[in-house]
Amino acid sequence: MRRLLLISNSTMHGRSYLDHVRDELQSFLTGVGELLFVPWALADHDAYAAKAISAFAPLGIRVRSLHTAPDVPAAIQSAEAVFVGGGNTFRLLHRLQQSGAAPALTARAMSGMRYVGSSAGTGIAAPTIRTTNDMPIVEPQSLASLALVPFQINAHYLDPDLHSTHMGETREERLRQFHEENAAPVLGLREGGWLVVDGSRMELRGSQPARLFVRGHAPTEYAPPFDLSFLLSKKELR
Amino acid sequence: MRRLLLISNSTMHGRSYLDHVRDELQSFLTGVGELLFVPWALADHDAYAAKAISAFAPLGIRVRSLHTAPDVPAAIQSAEAVFVGGGNTFRLLHRLQQSGAAPALTARAMSGMRYVGSSAGTGIAAPTIRTTNDMPIVEPQSLASLALVPFQINAHYLDPDLHSTHMGETREERLRQFHEENAAPVLGLREGGWLVVDGSRMELRGSQPARLFVRGHAPTEYAPPFDLSFLLSKKELR
Repeated sequence: MRRLLLISNSTMHGRSYLDHVRDELQSFLTGVGELLFVPWALADHDAYAAKAISAFAPLGIRVRSLHTAPDVPAAIQSAEAVFVGGGNTFRLLHRLQQSGAAPALTARAMSGMRYVGSSAGTGIAAPTIRTTNDMPIVEPQSLASLALVPFQINAHYLDPDLHSTHMGETREERLRQFHEENAAPVLGLREGGWLVVDGSRMELRGSQPARLFVRGHAPTEYAPPFDLSFLLSKKELR
Repeated sequence: MRRLLLISNSTMHGRSYLDHVRDELQSFLTGVGELLFVPWALADHDAYAAKAISAFAPLGIRVRSLHTAPDVPAAIQSAEAVFVGGGNTFRLLHRLQQSGAAPALTARAMSGMRYVGSSAGTGIAAPTIRTTNDMPIVEPQSLASLALVPFQINAHYLDPDLHSTHMGETREERLRQFHEENAAPVLGLREGGWLVVDGSRMELRGSQPARLFVRGHAPTEYAPPFDLSFLLSKKELR
């Protein structure tokens, strides 16, 4: 009975950290007294933890950072809820794998512990990190991630800049290349959008439509609020 | 006695394939009758090989594509010169590792076989692909690559768009994160730039300055033509 809040981006241009999802966080975390924060996607864990502490204080939620826990799997085992912050997805996954946090997170999240992810923390909720935008600055044991949902996510999904003369691949071209090699559907979650998962139900919320890429089909746009529960059922998309 | 031509991008906006480096290719490949082409960074090998054949025909150079070779290491062993085309760096490296081409390419290129790379083909000339811009659509055995030069390369280097409201990391921020985890210097090779390596000498050429990132220092700009041989000597940068 998973309960997930998967946010594309932690900060909207011109707004403060998590400000655009404050109401959703308040509602999703109702009754939670302490949140376990995973700061490993960034290098400066103390600074990142301080930022998270400040952001959740107005919601009346204490934050404990996983980097200060003496026993990582035990801290996850006893957590009321977890928030995995954004940054570099390869670095984050590497530390989750090294520390034994990854299987513990999957087990707890799949049995009902509330999980909030933002950006890299959202990307690792997919079966693999093969649709990340990040640079592979560290080499994880494998690209397999938490698999809290059965489809791939591309956070910070970006439409092509029609005025650009740069010849690097657009995001859509990159995802088309992903489908040359892989069958899993990919949800492109634009900045300002997020997913709320409650068991077998999933809704797209926020201010921006999401773009779904299914191998062999033209991409589809979904405007929030939209029920995307069909993406949680593998059968319908294979 | 390596001889390398490492091109940031195969195509400039509004020009045809390899057109902007035609003179350099002609000069670098003087005396070469047949070029071995590596098409593995893209999915459609036949189409990619046809494109390479057309591009080199006006230079009087025949192209043989590695995907049609019955014995990959043998084809590399007997090649006069190699051209590794661009596309997805993870896919390219994966096939080089799987096929046994990677060590064969390194051995031949380090003993004088001329090597031309473009984009992904340039990125794999570095010790690792940890500074690629590409999406990890396939999982190579490791991120270690050909190590024809001792520094990292970021092809298609892109300056920040000052008008953007997108919150994804800029290229420079990504490379700063690379240096949080790694010590190797990174040369950001903008589109329109390339490197010519001849033994222990290396020159930046083309139409655009390159941007060098050394851990713990502010980035440095170099305008072509510029002698960057110091980057081939590990000691000076550690």
